[in-house]
Amino acid sequence: MAFGWIDEQAELRRRAGLVRALRPRAADTPLLDLASNDYLGLARHPEVTEGAARAARTWGGGSTGSRLVTGTTELHAELERELAGFCGFEAALVFSSGYAANLAAVTALAPHGSRIVSDAGNHASLIDGCRLARGTTRVAAHSDPDAVRKALDGHHGPAVAVSDTVFSVDGDAAPLTGFAAACREHGAGLVLDDAHGLGVLGDGGRGAPYAAGLAGADDVVVTVTLSKSLGSQGGAVLGPARVIEHLVNAARTFIFDTGLAPAAVGAALSALRLLRREPGRAARAGEVARELHSRLTATGLEAVRPDAAVVSVRAPSPEQAVRWAADCRAAGLSVGCFRPPSVPDGVSRLRLTARADLSGAEIERAVRVIGETRP
Amino acid sequence: MAFGWIDEQAELRRRAGLVRALRPRAADTPLLDLASNDYLGLARHPEVTEGAARAARTWGGGSTGSRLVTGTTELHAELERELAGFCGFEAALVFSSGYAANLAAVTALAPHGSRIVSDAGNHASLIDGCRLARGTTRVAAHSDPDAVRKALDGHHGPAVAVSDTVFSVDGDAAPLTGFAAACREHGAGLVLDDAHGLGVLGDGGRGAPYAAGLAGADDVVVTVTLSKSLGSQGGAVLGPARVIEHLVNAARTFIFDTGLAPAAVGAALSALRLLRREPGRAARAGEVARELHSRLTATGLEAVRPDAAVVSVRAPSPEQAVRWAADCRAAGLSVGCFRPPSVPDGVSRLRLTARADLSGAEIERAVRVIGETRP
Ligand SMILES: Cc1ncc(COP(=O)(O)O)c(C=O)c1O
Ligand SMILES: Cc1ncc(COP(=O)(O)O)c(C=O)c1O
Repeated sequence: MAFGWIDEQAELRRRAGLVRALRPRAADTPLLDLASNDYLGLARHPEVTEGAARAARTWGGGSTGSRLVTGTTELHAELERELAGFCGFEAALVFSSGYAANLAAVTALAPHGSRIVSDAGNHASLIDGCRLARGTTRVAAHSDPDAVRKALDGHHGPAVAVSDTVFSVDGDAAPLTGFAAACREHGAGLVLDDAHGLGVLGDGGRGAPYAAGLAGADDVVVTVTLSKSLGSQGGAVLGPARVIEHLVNAARTFIFDTGLAPAAVGAALSALRLLRREPGRAARAGEVARELHSRLTATGLEAVRPDAAVVSVRAPSPEQAVRWAADCRAAGLSVGCFRPPSVPDGVSRLRLTARADLSGAEIERAVRVIGETRP
Repeated sequence: MAFGWIDEQAELRRRAGLVRALRPRAADTPLLDLASNDYLGLARHPEVTEGAARAARTWGGGSTGSRLVTGTTELHAELERELAGFCGFEAALVFSSGYAANLAAVTALAPHGSRIVSDAGNHASLIDGCRLARGTTRVAAHSDPDAVRKALDGHHGPAVAVSDTVFSVDGDAAPLTGFAAACREHGAGLVLDDAHGLGVLGDGGRGAPYAAGLAGADDVVVTVTLSKSLGSQGGAVLGPARVIEHLVNAARTFIFDTGLAPAAVGAALSALRLLRREPGRAARAGEVARELHSRLTATGLEAVRPDAAVVSVRAPSPEQAVRWAADCRAAGLSVGCFRPPSVPDGVSRLRLTARADLSGAEIERAVRVIGETRP
């Protein structure tokens, strides 16, 4: 039968205890959420949901076409202006997802004959961007500017180094100034995915590249997602106007994709304005993460020191990670569980996300539940 | 400078008259729209926009995480059930875009050692899926079941043929029963992108695979977008439950992407329910397309006979296509303009989309303007 081979793979997964299943959630649940990427607690904020509702009413349920045909509304242009301004870049381009933004940035900036240097810890969407790009990819050891330098050595023609700013699995920050220096020695561009930095790092949440003094540089391009700190959906590429113009003309996931739905544009715009007005939310997310980390490690758990809002706690095995997360859930706490094949190093973890709006009592409860359920 | 090579490309584009620029549109414009993919005229329908607004209020501005963590709401599950039921498939899986759904379907169903046969007229997202997949791709002549047959010949192991059901540039329909027969002779699966068929073709808009008697077959997988007939954003893969389970476990653009925003889910669900209640909308879109076609060709214009709701009119050159579209616009009519590099054959066209809600007077006006502005 045509898809018969699927059953063998399913059987292998079952035996390895690696089957994933969807668990639809209700709108209102008593679970304490440390699993979502809603770092600033804005996804359910009334200003954000009203921003979405208003945009849908004014502009429609969808954008109705490619951004190059009917899919660019004045609202898209407004978000692009404000996002670029906030993060300190000349221009921005909004996509239907952060995934699509990453595919666009990498493929459009790594033409035939170019070299791409990709950090070993990069997100799947950057990796897929490298695979799709016409340039040739070299994977560099994780967070190692010297490895980037060596991988760029001897290449003539266009080159880019590509990295997450905050790695999604462990929440560790990349050495951005080191990366920039390595790139500049070689005249290479730097493409940074700030999915987990925007809204958390940098002055008032302007992001990791801003914090590193790289915002607005003519050799730096940043991608962000609207789906984490900004509580919406979509992604964007930020950079020099000439790079953005190039993407409009060359990026397949821009040209051949329907524009982001107005409701998502409206929600992201409302969240961005809220963050400008209440910049303290950004720093608060980091504080909560550091507090979670120090209290968990005080109980003897092994956790990576958080550079942003992700706290990664090691689990002894995939099976125990799954059971641990399930036990947390049974005790009213929702945590993420990362295990093979979605962790590059094969190490299973509980993944906690700090939200700026967690109360002291909620942090207390989370730490207690995680400790009581540890394998 | 790092991105210096971009300027040369920009200069080449400028000289060739192929520069694309974004033109943000206002919420209310007097332009008659024959450019969007809003085939049923539902994007601005109050039930659809209210569906979006209600979902945002109930569920939040974003889904807050991967579908496997916090990004699956009961609303996602509801849409998946209703969409699968409507189109006649066992199960469905919703993605953040049709583009992401296509990347998922092709990559997850074409593992290492497999063969992919891809129609020469396929959409960019299917092509990118082929490029990303581990299997080896052979491009088959456009809409030619014998070419598919030959390309499958001699291969052992998993194989899929991949095709649009209605090709996005010319609006011509693929020979689905011929494709299915060719695949079945070889035990290959068939992956069909029904982006332009859903809501327009098949009983009450159930899509081209349904019309061809292929819905629910255990060797057929269909992808759709929620961004055209359903007036929203997002995509879905429809197929046997075992294929959908496989995608949940293996498709990178599912696992590593944030779930579709609730507002988009709500809008699509409202549109789907409206279509069930008013099935006549589907047939009406096709009627409008055929009327546009016959009246345009009656004036001597060269247009492809529409199989769905896309009407493609040939233009003598890229420059004249651009001028023609601009002249239409100046006369109050918005039409699409396809030209290199986004047309595979290098032929420039005006691309008109029939909407089910166009009135006789509007069709009249569109035909008149297109005729009066012809190069
Ligand atoms: C580092 C990183 N980049 C990109 C993405 C993709 O963004 P989106 O979910 O908006 O497509 C994610 C997560 O989803 C991510 O963690
Ligand atoms: C045939 C076809 N497939 C897939 C897509 C992508 O769908 P989406 O825009 O929802 O990403 C499109 C158009 O956008 C299309 O025309």
